[in-house]
Amino acid sequence: MRIGILGGGQLAMMMVQQSEDTNFDFLILDPTESPPASKYATCIKAEYDDIGSLNYIADECDVVTIDFENVPADTLRFLEKRIVVAPSSSAVEICQDRLKEKELFINCGIPVTKYTSVYDNDSLKASIDYMGKNSILKTRFLGYDGKNQFDMEKVDGIDYLKECKSNQLILEKKVDFEKEISIIGVRMNTGKILFYPLVENIHKNGILNYSIAPYDDKKLQKLAEEYHKKISDKLNYVGVLVIEFFLDKNGILIANEMAPRVHNSGHWTNEGANINQFQAHIKAVANCELESISIKNHSAMVNILSKKPDLKNIKDFDYAYYDYNKSERHNRKLGHITLNNKNRDKLMQDLNTVYNFIKT
Amino acid sequence: MRIGILGGGQLAMMMVQQSEDTNFDFLILDPTESPPASKYATCIKAEYDDIGSLNYIADECDVVTIDFENVPADTLRFLEKRIVVAPSSSAVEICQDRLKEKELFINCGIPVTKYTSVYDNDSLKASIDYMGKNSILKTRFLGYDGKNQFDMEKVDGIDYLKECKSNQLILEKKVDFEKEISIIGVRMNTGKILFYPLVENIHKNGILNYSIAPYDDKKLQKLAEEYHKKISDKLNYVGVLVIEFFLDKNGILIANEMAPRVHNSGHWTNEGANINQFQAHIKAVANCELESISIKNHSAMVNILSKKPDLKNIKDFDYAYYDYNKSERHNRKLGHITLNNKNRDKLMQDLNTVYNFIKT
Repeated sequence: MRIGILGGGQLAMMMVQQSEDTNFDFLILDPTESPPASKYATCIKAEYDDIGSLNYIADECDVVTIDFENVPADTLRFLEKRIVVAPSSSAVEICQDRLKEKELFINCGIPVTKYTSVYDNDSLKASIDYMGKNSILKTRFLGYDGKNQFDMEKVDGIDYLKECKSNQLILEKKVDFEKEISIIGVRMNTGKILFYPLVENIHKNGILNYSIAPYDDKKLQKLAEEYHKKISDKLNYVGVLVIEFFLDKNGILIANEMAPRVHNSGHWTNEGANINQFQAHIKAVANCELESISIKNHSAMVNILSKKPDLKNIKDFDYAYYDYNKSERHNRKLGHITLNNKNRDKLMQDLNTVYNFIKT
Repeated sequence: MRIGILGGGQLAMMMVQQSEDTNFDFLILDPTESPPASKYATCIKAEYDDIGSLNYIADECDVVTIDFENVPADTLRFLEKRIVVAPSSSAVEICQDRLKEKELFINCGIPVTKYTSVYDNDSLKASIDYMGKNSILKTRFLGYDGKNQFDMEKVDGIDYLKECKSNQLILEKKVDFEKEISIIGVRMNTGKILFYPLVENIHKNGILNYSIAPYDDKKLQKLAEEYHKKISDKLNYVGVLVIEFFLDKNGILIANEMAPRVHNSGHWTNEGANINQFQAHIKAVANCELESISIKNHSAMVNILSKKPDLKNIKDFDYAYYDYNKSERHNRKLGHITLNNKNRDKLMQDLNTVYNFIKT
């Protein structure tokens, strides 16, 4: 069975790598030169609206999925006329727009922070008057890893609309959160959903720094799963869907955003679960049966950003290292390290060592 | 030219009355016995989904409009396949759902209070935990005049979902407002919009008690008109559309709800403007030219609720009295009185006299 993947980044790369012992093979479309996945699977270099390439993928593949959520919805709709696309164009399209995403959260009864939409300097001023400066201005589309986000308390005198190159913006009230956690669920087209345990995520400058799993709270786990089910049922979703939450000081889960794909906060599953998120996603997309998900011990994942470390100096304990085959650039995700340990304290100690090693 | 009106309440009645000297005649559909408008125009007594009656209206009329916003959207869609319906089914459908209405406000960059959707007792509890008890639970559909609304601070121990006979609810954070004001605008299908000045509205138990116009604030007038234009353009709206706002203590306009029809807060226009809201609506719906709107002096409107007063004792000053020909019932709108005066202070004095007279 052949699976098409739109986007050839590290997520596509790991989908391919983690499917090594299966009957799946892959065909990837990516507009960039030598993306990470191209080392492991056939990769077509073309734009996402290149009709010839899309028709070729539809001819050659049984199903198509995505490696990142900003594949144009028109591309997915074009493919949907010919083959199965999972997740669907309509699900992905909602996740592309922070405003539609929030509407869906609210529709599903999931708390979100206060927000307004902004489309010009007058509406920005009116929105700040209403919401207060304790807010973040974001682009509705194409934002990721903290890009195109402006803290209204920290910056001033900037023509944000010019800076964002967009007049489709959203102003979100800052959430005074205690923790950031995410729920990773995989939904089959039968409607069955399997969940990984909650993950705690630590961000820096809007970029995920490291994750620790499980975040062990039965009540929150149940609530997050209910929220996920509400959303993924409504979208008739197929594949891995990840929802990121703030946990505020009153213990309330407030939805921040969601990703219609495998997710950085699920990389620990490669070593930490019986089936990892990449295998789970591919199986769901390929309409294969998934029995159950169980985890092994405690896990952590540390992102390697900006610069590749010399790992030969940290061989005192077990770790798995993933290299995305990308060139170094400030704040670029170049790889990650996963740790797994029976003992939570030992895990945290190792995480600390690795984190400090990578920082320097 | 014949105009169909779905609903035969006092608004339809006044549309007919105020079109007396025109070439328009009317055909009304209403499921109730002898609704207010039936005294002035031909009225078909049938349900809104009675296909025979709808086909008859489509055969006999040139255009169809509505007297109340809860005409089923399917009825409007059915008619739209045969004749012009103004406002359109899609515009009316949004106004029927408090959740969709709020989404539209946010999409247009208009502040709204914080809200969550509620669909069962668990989600109600979670929503109150998040929003606080300083909130009002409302049905998304079919609520009006404060019906099906529960102040979470005042009531307790009620099974709201059972009480509301609905699992499509919305919890809205109470707004600490200084005033309630509304903007009445009429949009032609050319895109031209004419506005009345802002109206101040005083409610009691969720029901409009009286209105005073103009609410003279150039800056707010401009902003409210901009908000109205954003929305009515987006909906490609034809006819009168009214948006009700809270004005908070910081001078911020916060949209509360909107009505896709002529509105109780515009009844003063009968005596207070060169063209009243009923004439303006019918002309827009009938695709006739509307030049401009100007007002005469200061106006007030007082609703007559529950019980009809003996007006012969208040003849010391000019007023206009409208009787809706309805039987008395607690909190039912039975009629209204409009006052108009060059002198604002004299108007307020008269308003006070009438209001106190009606109360007793």
